[in-house]
Amino acid sequence: MQTTALLADMVSAMSARRSVRQYTDAPIDDALLNELLEAAARTQTMGNLQLYSVVVTRNAAMKARLAPAHFNQPMVTAAPVLLTFCADYHRTTAWCRARKAEPGYDNFLSFINAATDALLFCQSFCNLAEAAGLGLCYLGTTVYQPQQIIDALQLPRLVMPVATITLGWPDGQPAQTDRLPLSAFVHNEQYVLPTPSSIDRDYSAKEALPENREFVAINHKETLAQIFTDIRYTKRDCEAMSQGLLDALKRQGFLE
Amino acid sequence: MQTTALLADMVSAMSARRSVRQYTDAPIDDALLNELLEAAARTQTMGNLQLYSVVVTRNAAMKARLAPAHFNQPMVTAAPVLLTFCADYHRTTAWCRARKAEPGYDNFLSFINAATDALLFCQSFCNLAEAAGLGLCYLGTTVYQPQQIIDALQLPRLVMPVATITLGWPDGQPAQTDRLPLSAFVHNEQYVLPTPSSIDRDYSAKEALPENREFVAINHKETLAQIFTDIRYTKRDCEAMSQGLLDALKRQGFLE
Repeated sequence: MQTTALLADMVSAMSARRSVRQYTDAPIDDALLNELLEAAARTQTMGNLQLYSVVVTRNAAMKARLAPAHFNQPMVTAAPVLLTFCADYHRTTAWCRARKAEPGYDNFLSFINAATDALLFCQSFCNLAEAAGLGLCYLGTTVYQPQQIIDALQLPRLVMPVATITLGWPDGQPAQTDRLPLSAFVHNEQYVLPTPSSIDRDYSAKEALPENREFVAINHKETLAQIFTDIRYTKRDCEAMSQGLLDALKRQGFLE
Repeated sequence: MQTTALLADMVSAMSARRSVRQYTDAPIDDALLNELLEAAARTQTMGNLQLYSVVVTRNAAMKARLAPAHFNQPMVTAAPVLLTFCADYHRTTAWCRARKAEPGYDNFLSFINAATDALLFCQSFCNLAEAAGLGLCYLGTTVYQPQQIIDALQLPRLVMPVATITLGWPDGQPAQTDRLPLSAFVHNEQYVLPTPSSIDRDYSAKEALPENREFVAINHKETLAQIFTDIRYTKRDCEAMSQGLLDALKRQGFLE
């Protein structure tokens, strides 16, 4: 059974990782950023087409313009670099048109293929950046109000933003968050439906954490789950943002 | 500017990586697989909800049942392990219901959030597995005919397969494929539209590769791009599979 020193180092680094929202004033060298992007681009990609682009934001005015799309979270303007990862069939389509080939990628499957390529590339970049000692925070807000980002970054048809990370040298070390046990998310051969007792087994440690109990108390809720359903990710918000996301996919040409 | 030995090792490993489709008969130890899954689960996740599941396939009959969904690619039945990564809001919804909270995650935004979580987790797993010396091949076919996979793995409502990898100890070392230069996919501040000359700059090395020229010749095509538009990913197939994917998302409860 082959295992390597690299594995031990990576497992150790991954096991200690945390999202970083506060950065020092130190800049990120262009050569380092390019080294990380180039290595990340070795990630598997559909048909070797690399159906992604990344927009690098260093300009303060552009950070300020992107901030509202990310609910003005302070790390958007404070981080030295923002990276917006995009599902991109525009470039491949332009290549086809320049080469007497008739592309047919203005459809939903092609969006999912390109979004997948972009997200896998993004995560390899994150793994590499953290190994370089950089800290990052992943902004899920990218798909909440995508049209603002599309406009700011001038994304053309068949380009859709799917992930943003804020990147910088860590200022301090935040606390590490918990994770569910493997029994919550690993299934053997077929999916085993959760039961009240498997829910208790997998979630009770999380619910018992002092920070989560306090979070429930200060929000005057009865359970931790209510924090998510009533405050953080409400049905009403999810439905409204679903419509905005579908509208943006239509405008970008990925959906009829 | 802090850089680490881990970074150098990871860049070196990533730069040398290739997808592996042929495996030895050696099994994959359960303890190793669990170590990799547990480390990968440190990947950032929306609201720390871990909106994913992974189904582990070792059973030969189950591999044979999944094979047609993956166009009977031989590594599906030959690999010792298949992993199907799923966007999963079922478990979180069950947790909410068990905790007096009313979930509202049967919508498209929630699918994208969960698919993102699943794909980031998947890619961290891939990077760790390759560091362990394992070889893998990513099967994009997972979203082509998802209903067959949903049925085989008994995935309930609000669970959707988004990625499959075949995993094993490499039998031989396949050739490495090329990648586009950074100029093709990295944009500064705003997206720069491709032009005929940028297309030539970014794609001519790929088009000049002997294996690609031969591929064009044996298929009686005029350009490499035509291989993609006319054979590998045709408009007709993409549109038909888009409909199947949207239908599966509706059946799984993620789309009205």
